[in-house]
Amino acid sequence: MQKEAIYHSSSSKYLYAYDNETIHIRLRTKKGDADEIKLRWGDPFEWEEDEKGNWTWELYETVKMEKQGSSSLFDFWVAALKPPYKRVKYAFEIHSGSESIVYAEKGFFQSDEKNDSGGFFTFPYLNEEDVFSPPEWVKETVWYQIFPERFANGNPSLDPEGTLPWGSKDPERDSFFGGDLEGIIQHIDYLKDLGITGVYMTPVFKAPTNHKYDTIDYMEIDPHFGDKETFRKLVETCHSNGIKVMIDAVFNHAGYHFPPFQDVLEKGEASKYKDWFHMKEFPLKTEPKPNYATFAFEKTMPKLNTSNPELKAYLIETGKYWVKEFDVDGWRLDVANEVPHTFWREFRKEVKAIKPDVYILGEIWHEASEWLLGDQFDAVMNYPYTDAALRYFGKEEITAEEFIDKTVSAVYMYPDNVTEVSFNLLGSHDTPRILTECGGNKDKVKQLMAFLLSAPGTPCIYYGDEIGLSGDMDPGCRKCMVWDEKQRDLDMLAFTKKLISLRKAMPVFGNHGHLTFLDQYIGQDIIAYTKEYGEEKLLFLFSNAKGAELHLDESLQGGTFKELISGRDISGSEGIVLKPNEVLILKR
Amino acid sequence: MQKEAIYHSSSSKYLYAYDNETIHIRLRTKKGDADEIKLRWGDPFEWEEDEKGNWTWELYETVKMEKQGSSSLFDFWVAALKPPYKRVKYAFEIHSGSESIVYAEKGFFQSDEKNDSGGFFTFPYLNEEDVFSPPEWVKETVWYQIFPERFANGNPSLDPEGTLPWGSKDPERDSFFGGDLEGIIQHIDYLKDLGITGVYMTPVFKAPTNHKYDTIDYMEIDPHFGDKETFRKLVETCHSNGIKVMIDAVFNHAGYHFPPFQDVLEKGEASKYKDWFHMKEFPLKTEPKPNYATFAFEKTMPKLNTSNPELKAYLIETGKYWVKEFDVDGWRLDVANEVPHTFWREFRKEVKAIKPDVYILGEIWHEASEWLLGDQFDAVMNYPYTDAALRYFGKEEITAEEFIDKTVSAVYMYPDNVTEVSFNLLGSHDTPRILTECGGNKDKVKQLMAFLLSAPGTPCIYYGDEIGLSGDMDPGCRKCMVWDEKQRDLDMLAFTKKLISLRKAMPVFGNHGHLTFLDQYIGQDIIAYTKEYGEEKLLFLFSNAKGAELHLDESLQGGTFKELISGRDISGSEGIVLKPNEVLILKR
Repeated sequence: MQKEAIYHSSSSKYLYAYDNETIHIRLRTKKGDADEIKLRWGDPFEWEEDEKGNWTWELYETVKMEKQGSSSLFDFWVAALKPPYKRVKYAFEIHSGSESIVYAEKGFFQSDEKNDSGGFFTFPYLNEEDVFSPPEWVKETVWYQIFPERFANGNPSLDPEGTLPWGSKDPERDSFFGGDLEGIIQHIDYLKDLGITGVYMTPVFKAPTNHKYDTIDYMEIDPHFGDKETFRKLVETCHSNGIKVMIDAVFNHAGYHFPPFQDVLEKGEASKYKDWFHMKEFPLKTEPKPNYATFAFEKTMPKLNTSNPELKAYLIETGKYWVKEFDVDGWRLDVANEVPHTFWREFRKEVKAIKPDVYILGEIWHEASEWLLGDQFDAVMNYPYTDAALRYFGKEEITAEEFIDKTVSAVYMYPDNVTEVSFNLLGSHDTPRILTECGGNKDKVKQLMAFLLSAPGTPCIYYGDEIGLSGDMDPGCRKCMVWDEKQRDLDMLAFTKKLISLRKAMPVFGNHGHLTFLDQYIGQDIIAYTKEYGEEKLLFLFSNAKGAELHLDESLQGGTFKELISGRDISGSEGIVLKPNEVLILKR
Repeated sequence: MQKEAIYHSSSSKYLYAYDNETIHIRLRTKKGDADEIKLRWGDPFEWEEDEKGNWTWELYETVKMEKQGSSSLFDFWVAALKPPYKRVKYAFEIHSGSESIVYAEKGFFQSDEKNDSGGFFTFPYLNEEDVFSPPEWVKETVWYQIFPERFANGNPSLDPEGTLPWGSKDPERDSFFGGDLEGIIQHIDYLKDLGITGVYMTPVFKAPTNHKYDTIDYMEIDPHFGDKETFRKLVETCHSNGIKVMIDAVFNHAGYHFPPFQDVLEKGEASKYKDWFHMKEFPLKTEPKPNYATFAFEKTMPKLNTSNPELKAYLIETGKYWVKEFDVDGWRLDVANEVPHTFWREFRKEVKAIKPDVYILGEIWHEASEWLLGDQFDAVMNYPYTDAALRYFGKEEITAEEFIDKTVSAVYMYPDNVTEVSFNLLGSHDTPRILTECGGNKDKVKQLMAFLLSAPGTPCIYYGDEIGLSGDMDPGCRKCMVWDEKQRDLDMLAFTKKLISLRKAMPVFGNHGHLTFLDQYIGQDIIAYTKEYGEEKLLFLFSNAKGAELHLDESLQGGTFKELISGRDISGSEGIVLKPNEVLILKR
């Protein structure tokens, strides 16, 4: 047995409360190494003394763990327990061929060795207030990301000087096209018709640039976007159409024109705002490199010092204000990984005190467990999950096996209740558009959309991807939304709409179904996975090969399937033909 | 290469800020598998664009990692960085024979493959307020645990009815011997002479039992122990003698006679305290099993519901009151692992606001990383560390190799700054005494003491172990302290005192020295380790064999050593003779 590969830890992703009654326990072993794993468990305090004064611990049960996923190197085993007294002591009994050992916190034991719970792993007590509890509604939400300056121009009177005619050219870094809040309100029917239930807008606060990530005033709507009354109308319109609203804030750094920073620039050490930033010396210099901490090396984005009590109070008031006064449903927090954990803990507490089911989403591109322990964020932008899909389906940079490896690894990177609300996205204002990543191949885009909408997590569509917008890295990916039907990819729109409706109609399609990869088609460059929920089962097939004919394995043969996108019937016994870059979603 | 054994994670023990400038990065590999590991690192934002518009990431440095420890299965590699902009992107270049690979967050790469920082691991920003920062004084403290009912009877007028003459018999579960706070004050010179710099007292609050873990009133001193004025005098006396004071509280559960619990017992659902506990139904029953949550299955210890705002306010006020009014230096928190994390976060914030360098110590016997992220405890009672020593030196249950394995594993269980203040103990009021664990063998006790005092962490001596008290599990381990010199083991006392003075005099002896096991003597059942700090180096030798003659390896031969306990000179070239169960501490 490969002991060095066996891994468990009494912390978040390997041991966590899934809900107020259930504890999930995971174990990792070398792929193919263990045949069977059983969990020995009981209550820490169930000891009985016999007449001779010897104490014996009562083992409640030995349950079989389920092998729920496999990456290239590892198998992942899972057990779910509902301990009667909310406490558990446990160890793993690992069987490999004729060998069996017990793995516990104090190390490895022989499986027939007497080992009471003394050296076992411990889940000391399931306290409800520690359970990771994101808002319930997020699990069922389909998001749509809007970059307001480029979605629709609803009130041309607000246009800044030099605004270009809508869609008249490809955007440059400093272009303005006049998009605004009124534009979003006017197109709410479009979003509703598409099936969207949550809108995420990049910043709307006062800022000079078109992206508005360089905030001047966290308490004001940018005048080119509208005013507070328009914002209120936007939120109300969304709500009355069953759409949640998430807004975006940058608490890591301010914009160059943020008045407190200007005050420090002007008055230097005498400024009462000097501790709102991280100044190394005075006077401030911006050349050759700034002598104050910044976002990246961007002198126009001075890093905020959230340890300063006044600044902290101001930023937390911002978090509360837009929720309390405008009934906003979510905060997306920019560069969240560079802001102290202590700040986020307080932010969460204060904002959730006003509206407990606000969704708090951090922008973190890497593994983010330390922000997802229940005390900070409900979710992070789940780039690692979709990165693999983009590289496999879109860019053809990795093999089918690598795609499965990375996707499974991303799932076991977080507890299930974290993954269920993770913000999954194929692209954003910070990445090239998926159509461009796919070299213009629309079938690949469809595969990506089908993967996104059927994955665990909460999917987000970047505005315009559903009608075939293209564009490279910023500024290319920030083109004006197209409202002329003739210029839209209506087939892609119908396809996306169909996927959304399936996800919403069938619990198994979305967050409720467990996704299992079938590896027998990997050699043919075909990705196959099932999704299961109770009696329901779907089979997803994606071809990355050229004109492959898929031979179903025996368990699937003989049945008749309905293909859910097209609605046509397919007979399994005749063999299923997958066209290049096709996706089929089959239900028996 | 054994890829399945390679492990790193962007969370606490594998990646952490050691101080406001330094980041520690650790990696685990299969023992003996890697010959050399280099860390590739740079700043996340150091990208340069060339004339053709291609971006290149600037790798700052490739540094050799140090193999700092080895357990039975694994090698642990460490690098310490001081990144100029407090941010790091990094990956590991692992060399094994002719093979080399790069391990990054996105997986394994060929070492000559172009891989910019895109897939690297990330330490996003070193924010000072997130750095784990225990009180500075703890690192240098030598603790002494007092069970007040058994330390000294300083004021017989407070004795409860039925108090037994001091030390007249072995204690039973419900014995009283009249120990009190005045008794501790009267013996402060003894503690000072021993070299103690911190006293930890089990609970002193009003409670009916001798151990006082069944609190009736968190705001009152137990009348058999004294009153608030005596307590104030105790703290002042300790402080004026350079001794810190840590007290003990139980916030997990109350005593049966806690008035709010009595109120619920009496009034049932009508009691205004009904939500202070976890009641499943009314009326309350205690037989056959309590129908309310308890500590273990103990009906006299009802579990407190810290989610209740009034109760939480009362308990947090307790935490603040004794610090604010009596200048207490530390809180030891009983059954800390069963209380919600949310409660501890608030507790820490409130108590540290009054006195930032209060030491917060949780009673947790198992791996406790989730409580040691900087937002909850400064330390836990480090039973896993000393358990191995007890089983090897004391009970002879494990081999030298297993001892080293478990000790090294315990060190890499936590970040270095956590380990430096971990509360190391060989025994307490909850375990058999070490002399008893050693079967009465005093030489073994000396070995344990030498190990405890030279280990990383902050050592605690359980009252009386230094004068040879014996005793089995509670109530045996709670005998009366012996004040008659003739009944004391004066040799053990002198030995303990010597160790304490060495630890205090030599930084290398205590928390500042890095401990490295030498494995060449394992076969002879001899444990050898060096401790190094700058130019200073000590060699510790412990024999568990019978009359072993130790042959030093070449690097040590030829020198003359001073043995620090006895003060005698030893010539390395003549060979060093270790008597059975002897410990030698050598300085060249």
